[in-house]
Amino acid sequence: MLNGIRENSTMKEVYQYIEDHKEMYVKWLFDLCEQPSVAAQNRGIKETAEMVEHHLKNLGAEVELVATEGNPVVYGEIQNGKEKTLSFYNHYDVQPEDPIDQWLSDPFTPEIRDGKIYARGVADNKGTLLSRICAVHAYQAVYGTLPINLKFLVEGEEEIGSPHLEEFIINNPKKIQADGCIWENGFKTLDGRLQITLGCKGMLYVELRAKGANIDLHSAKAAIVENPAWRLVWALSTLKNTKEEVLIEGFYDKVKTLTEEERKLTEEMELDEAADLENLGLKNYVNNLTGFPLKEKLIFQPTCTICGIESGYTAEGSKTVLPSTAKVKLDFRLVSEQDPEEIYDLLVKHLVKHGFGDIEVIKLKGQRAGTTELTDPLVEKVVSTAQQFYDQKPQVLRSQAGTGPMYNLCQKFGIPSLGFGVGNATSQNHAPNENINLTDYIEGIKFMASVLRSYA
Amino acid sequence: MLNGIRENSTMKEVYQYIEDHKEMYVKWLFDLCEQPSVAAQNRGIKETAEMVEHHLKNLGAEVELVATEGNPVVYGEIQNGKEKTLSFYNHYDVQPEDPIDQWLSDPFTPEIRDGKIYARGVADNKGTLLSRICAVHAYQAVYGTLPINLKFLVEGEEEIGSPHLEEFIINNPKKIQADGCIWENGFKTLDGRLQITLGCKGMLYVELRAKGANIDLHSAKAAIVENPAWRLVWALSTLKNTKEEVLIEGFYDKVKTLTEEERKLTEEMELDEAADLENLGLKNYVNNLTGFPLKEKLIFQPTCTICGIESGYTAEGSKTVLPSTAKVKLDFRLVSEQDPEEIYDLLVKHLVKHGFGDIEVIKLKGQRAGTTELTDPLVEKVVSTAQQFYDQKPQVLRSQAGTGPMYNLCQKFGIPSLGFGVGNATSQNHAPNENINLTDYIEGIKFMASVLRSYA
Repeated sequence: MLNGIRENSTMKEVYQYIEDHKEMYVKWLFDLCEQPSVAAQNRGIKETAEMVEHHLKNLGAEVELVATEGNPVVYGEIQNGKEKTLSFYNHYDVQPEDPIDQWLSDPFTPEIRDGKIYARGVADNKGTLLSRICAVHAYQAVYGTLPINLKFLVEGEEEIGSPHLEEFIINNPKKIQADGCIWENGFKTLDGRLQITLGCKGMLYVELRAKGANIDLHSAKAAIVENPAWRLVWALSTLKNTKEEVLIEGFYDKVKTLTEEERKLTEEMELDEAADLENLGLKNYVNNLTGFPLKEKLIFQPTCTICGIESGYTAEGSKTVLPSTAKVKLDFRLVSEQDPEEIYDLLVKHLVKHGFGDIEVIKLKGQRAGTTELTDPLVEKVVSTAQQFYDQKPQVLRSQAGTGPMYNLCQKFGIPSLGFGVGNATSQNHAPNENINLTDYIEGIKFMASVLRSYA
Repeated sequence: MLNGIRENSTMKEVYQYIEDHKEMYVKWLFDLCEQPSVAAQNRGIKETAEMVEHHLKNLGAEVELVATEGNPVVYGEIQNGKEKTLSFYNHYDVQPEDPIDQWLSDPFTPEIRDGKIYARGVADNKGTLLSRICAVHAYQAVYGTLPINLKFLVEGEEEIGSPHLEEFIINNPKKIQADGCIWENGFKTLDGRLQITLGCKGMLYVELRAKGANIDLHSAKAAIVENPAWRLVWALSTLKNTKEEVLIEGFYDKVKTLTEEERKLTEEMELDEAADLENLGLKNYVNNLTGFPLKEKLIFQPTCTICGIESGYTAEGSKTVLPSTAKVKLDFRLVSEQDPEEIYDLLVKHLVKHGFGDIEVIKLKGQRAGTTELTDPLVEKVVSTAQQFYDQKPQVLRSQAGTGPMYNLCQKFGIPSLGFGVGNATSQNHAPNENINLTDYIEGIKFMASVLRSYA
């Protein structure tokens, strides 16, 4: 407790500095969000990487734009000769902004409405990235140097599955070394508690393509010419049933059952179903799940999701056409020991077995689930700092429902990792009207500064 | 035979006139095709109706742009006090031009390549419409007057299922009266024989819409939030199986078995499967059908076709999103006594029965199949004229595989009707690179002129 008091008093000046420079820190965020950086479409990558490089140089870091076969990784190192080294894993790319017509303001013109900052990428994860940069900035401004060594690993392809991060990891084994890694992002619960997540789901993202005749035809011909849209529908209907069970043989083989500890964390996990459902405009969750089984499915179960499907005429009115092609984008969120390569093979085998060997399966992303032990000192340190700072117990999640390269970057090398950030329960990541609360951003800078202190 | 010789000799001058004015007739076609008239998107309707009106006035017809709740019907009448009255049913609207990137030239900039005229609508059915206008023009230029009375019924909504033609029919019972009706369009077989069709399939066109959450979500949430794309896929998979059997209870109840006459016509029907498959880039037809069962399915069997499906992210790369909506456009080509209203009810009932009552079913088109008796004098007259003109037996088809409002406009009132036109076996109606042969166009004008003569 004495320690706590002392710590708080030493942080007071830093918090004050952050308050005094609030406008500047918000401007930095606006500037970064104004710059599109859509990895899926290769838009604005170079410009955004350079903006991040500039920010890190401004902190006095040794910065390198590390080239890969894909987008560069912005690497920054602040070497103070301290005992402990923390790394930040973040990304400067964002999801595509469509469907654009559902945005209330331009996705790349940040706007504050009712205390929220709206912009593509503001929650995932430019807000959290900048909260870390600003925390270091404020801490150094007040104390001159950090109490630890720091590494920034800011990649530009997270939203497309980090296809070249592995290349970076292999070529730069020293750069990724750290005693602990703070993962890219995080949110608050609906009742305002900070979430700290100790893992990520994995992912296999594929595109399935079916082909019919070599051109679109008058649909009169559909009596005798095969329709690729139908083939895709039939193939998909063999993959998952209406009970949400994935029907690919062997799909669940490497999904582990929950430990007692995991059950306990899941029981403690807050999910305000009524508020969440109201926010989503829904009456119930899949299979009418509620309570523990609902949370268990969200955190511990793999998924098979149609992210997009397209064939033929989709504009206004009617067009009687027999399409020549059909495609679907599927993501599988993976858990436990599920291996994306293996799941890909099982999927291809499944399609062949069910008579859909003609459907092309293109792998766009593959990533294993990553996790950190609950008992790791990094976890204990951050959880206790959060409890002190926010004056309430943070919500520790065994894993995000989302995906990240935590396995490849940390778990594989024995580096503990956990994530938190400046998002909220309705941040709408990947969706229109993505947002963070202005107060969460400023508070997040302060909390990050206090973690820098407590980790030392 | 004597008769035939005399007829030919009297037509000689008309044929010569057509040869002499070929360039003008092609220019008329180019001008009409340059004018977009996409009913599904309400583009260029008024301008095109006025162009047709101008052409009919130029023939000395009494012309009226008959307003409907939708697009106007261009009605033209040439009343010569003759015994017999023939009507032409045509349409001035065309299908949407997309997918635009598959066109080798701009769909609304007609272009001649290798003897073919390429343009949206040139085969369906602006070429045939103008061949009729030009035939009348040439005949009158040579002989002063036509040997029959003539009516032009040129509607502007055929490609969206003629939703207001019924209104026109009810309000204008006298305008539709005729001794026979020449239907909008037709083609040649792969070996160059004229096709004469005695019927059209009917149609039910619907859009199915599924709804999930009120916004697109991060696909991590797909573990617990229902995906409308999946619901649509599951619903569709209950409608038709991979053997192409429609599974809606009662769907086939009103499909009649073939008469002996129909079997004979179908046996005589030419379908060069190898050439057609090569042209389509396919190895086989659905269910590996060939020969009689293939032709039977094309002409006499109803269909259920996915014309378009769309949900979520469909652009480049990957986006991990849980879509909030999904839609599919379905056309059912109907035969025999199948009633679109009844099929719609059966479809809705089917969806409810299979647990998909939440999926909205929007009816966009409804039309019954239409037919004319083989023994009708109109049929005999046109078939014998074709045999004489082309010096080979035309191919008489019991029905088109396509759809038209023949039932409502003709069959209901006892008006016999048959269709022929200037298209060819690879005209690609409704698809990119729609085309007709320049020679088919000019020949079609001459043939139409000889039908005017022989029908008298």
